[in-house]
Amino acid sequence: MVHSTSRTWLAAAAALALASPLSAQSRVYGSAEHSFRVVTVAEGFEHPWAIGFLPDGDILVTERPGRLRIIRNGRLLAAPVEGVPAVFAVGQGGLLDVVPHPDFASNRLVYLTYSKPLGGQESTTAVIRGRLDNDRLTNVEEIFEAQSRGRGHYGSRLAFDGRGYLFVSVGERMAAPSLLEAHPAQDFSNHHGTVNRLFEDGRVPPDNPFVGREGYRPEIWSKGHRNPQSLAIHPVTGQLFEAEHGPQGGDELNLIEPGKNYGWPVIGFGVNYGSGSRIHEGTARDGMEQPLHVWVPSIATSGMMIYGGDAFPGWKGSIFVGGMAGEQLARIELDDSGYALEETLLKGIGRVRDVREGPDGFIYLAIDEQGTGLTPIVRLEPVAR
Amino acid sequence: MVHSTSRTWLAAAAALALASPLSAQSRVYGSAEHSFRVVTVAEGFEHPWAIGFLPDGDILVTERPGRLRIIRNGRLLAAPVEGVPAVFAVGQGGLLDVVPHPDFASNRLVYLTYSKPLGGQESTTAVIRGRLDNDRLTNVEEIFEAQSRGRGHYGSRLAFDGRGYLFVSVGERMAAPSLLEAHPAQDFSNHHGTVNRLFEDGRVPPDNPFVGREGYRPEIWSKGHRNPQSLAIHPVTGQLFEAEHGPQGGDELNLIEPGKNYGWPVIGFGVNYGSGSRIHEGTARDGMEQPLHVWVPSIATSGMMIYGGDAFPGWKGSIFVGGMAGEQLARIELDDSGYALEETLLKGIGRVRDVREGPDGFIYLAIDEQGTGLTPIVRLEPVAR
Repeated sequence: MVHSTSRTWLAAAAALALASPLSAQSRVYGSAEHSFRVVTVAEGFEHPWAIGFLPDGDILVTERPGRLRIIRNGRLLAAPVEGVPAVFAVGQGGLLDVVPHPDFASNRLVYLTYSKPLGGQESTTAVIRGRLDNDRLTNVEEIFEAQSRGRGHYGSRLAFDGRGYLFVSVGERMAAPSLLEAHPAQDFSNHHGTVNRLFEDGRVPPDNPFVGREGYRPEIWSKGHRNPQSLAIHPVTGQLFEAEHGPQGGDELNLIEPGKNYGWPVIGFGVNYGSGSRIHEGTARDGMEQPLHVWVPSIATSGMMIYGGDAFPGWKGSIFVGGMAGEQLARIELDDSGYALEETLLKGIGRVRDVREGPDGFIYLAIDEQGTGLTPIVRLEPVAR
Repeated sequence: MVHSTSRTWLAAAAALALASPLSAQSRVYGSAEHSFRVVTVAEGFEHPWAIGFLPDGDILVTERPGRLRIIRNGRLLAAPVEGVPAVFAVGQGGLLDVVPHPDFASNRLVYLTYSKPLGGQESTTAVIRGRLDNDRLTNVEEIFEAQSRGRGHYGSRLAFDGRGYLFVSVGERMAAPSLLEAHPAQDFSNHHGTVNRLFEDGRVPPDNPFVGREGYRPEIWSKGHRNPQSLAIHPVTGQLFEAEHGPQGGDELNLIEPGKNYGWPVIGFGVNYGSGSRIHEGTARDGMEQPLHVWVPSIATSGMMIYGGDAFPGWKGSIFVGGMAGEQLARIELDDSGYALEETLLKGIGRVRDVREGPDGFIYLAIDEQGTGLTPIVRLEPVAR
């Protein structure tokens, strides 16, 4: 957000060098509550997008070009999982989120989101589930296909609330923000810019806020989002949090409540990339929700996890959000007025696409460092101090 | 920035208790680069506003009601400095910043900003300097009186650049933001919402950007600020940074360049306190500058220092900004694209009104915890780890 004349001057001002953390993995990182190391779990991925943990210790990783990979006993298996649907692997499209069902141990169900090819250059966000047996996905069934058209910005994340519901986020598909109220993210008859709530088999819960209302998609739980690449349930309170990848200066952290409109593109904090030109009518309007926190400048949010483990007790309840352009892991604490503080961890680690809590309580990151090929899954392990 | 229905729910969500750091001063705080303790330097102040260091070891502290105090050999002297001008001690008004001249050792000059009574309920921001001898201020002369009227929002900070110039910030005096282009902060014929550049004796440097231009005050260096309670020169590059206390969701960190317009109230990121209603036409406009960083939600910025000492080598070049409502110390790193990261230190410490680097390289804070009477000067001291 610096105009060009300042940029050179600022370059000279950067008195400290922000060295790449991954270049020295044995180093110990300090932070307010914990010291930790960053340890490589596996590497050699192509655009890793999401991480899922199975109860037998296997770790699933989606690769955006369309592969579902398995890390087993610390090794990345060469063969991807068979049975994954064909994806529209163009631009931001491809195989996206992966989340095992909370009762995977008994039902072996894995859920995936992806950009589904619709013919020609058309694609949409869809959710399938399948049974994972012998490293093959079988009985694949589509449980949701978003009513959306456009380029990129698919969302898409999944979150089970453990009470029988599944939340699915869908991006605004890059429709022109200048449409304002006429933007599809403000039109409830489609799924552009939504969080949706389904039963785990894809049926629509009858108590969803817009069920039975003409001109409203019944799956919609909230509307008016840009590109929600982050979705997580609080492990204690059950609250649903979302972060959305905004325009320049407009990444948001939101508390999601049913039936609410989060305002894209009518209100927001961002400007257009490059030109810095105006997008929104303002930052607030009656009937549209305010974010809990905004990143100005943007970090390019992707992935989110609310920590509930024991390996980092001082981080219980903290919201972790990955930053791609920001090359960082953001830790946010809440207090009774909402947002309390932000701590930037691992600045310079690379493009953090996903962040998940492992069953061991360690914090796993998917890094997608385009260009360098440095695309590992790493994890944070605590170091006593 | 949470609507009321969420607030209660969020209260339940605050899984971690943010205990007051001052209740346990022997504790060691962790952070990314350094561990440190917070040690009380002196206490018993009434609304401490600013801290200044003299070469003989004395520490000056302004108290907003109108007193200039001295900490000598670790003790707060009972008698305030005599000779300080009468102040308009109403609301936010009073005795504000204090900065000794860079050559104090030879000239014994101390500079003060204050809200100057103009009769009735009128007041403005003014700067005096005087010679400090035997704990008395003598030869007091006014070197700047802002052309401004209104309530509160005086600014006001001072920064010497060490090359013969003195910068002075003035607030927008709470003129109605709905005035937009007609707001006095957009009118260059007054000092509302300005950073000004003077010679150290108050004369106007002939190369100031608006010298000789009709309808422009010649002292003006930059315009369009809200309430700039933070001003600091980078110790290595000489760049001038400013932070301004914004509306709800609109605190800004700016790199100040001569002749630039920073946009208040035409553009900005905030909304009105309480109502959450719209203020700005948007967040960007040609001819108006973008901030390096915005705090959403606001922390209520006051005080700023760019670290150049040796006690905390990992913090060299970091920008430290106090947060009053945020009750925190923000540490910001820059890189060659501008803002790099923020780290929240000392969350819950109380209302941080000022932050300064001491000659010992320790970091001094003035805390103004209204209500509790907990208003110490404290300092951060490094702890090896």
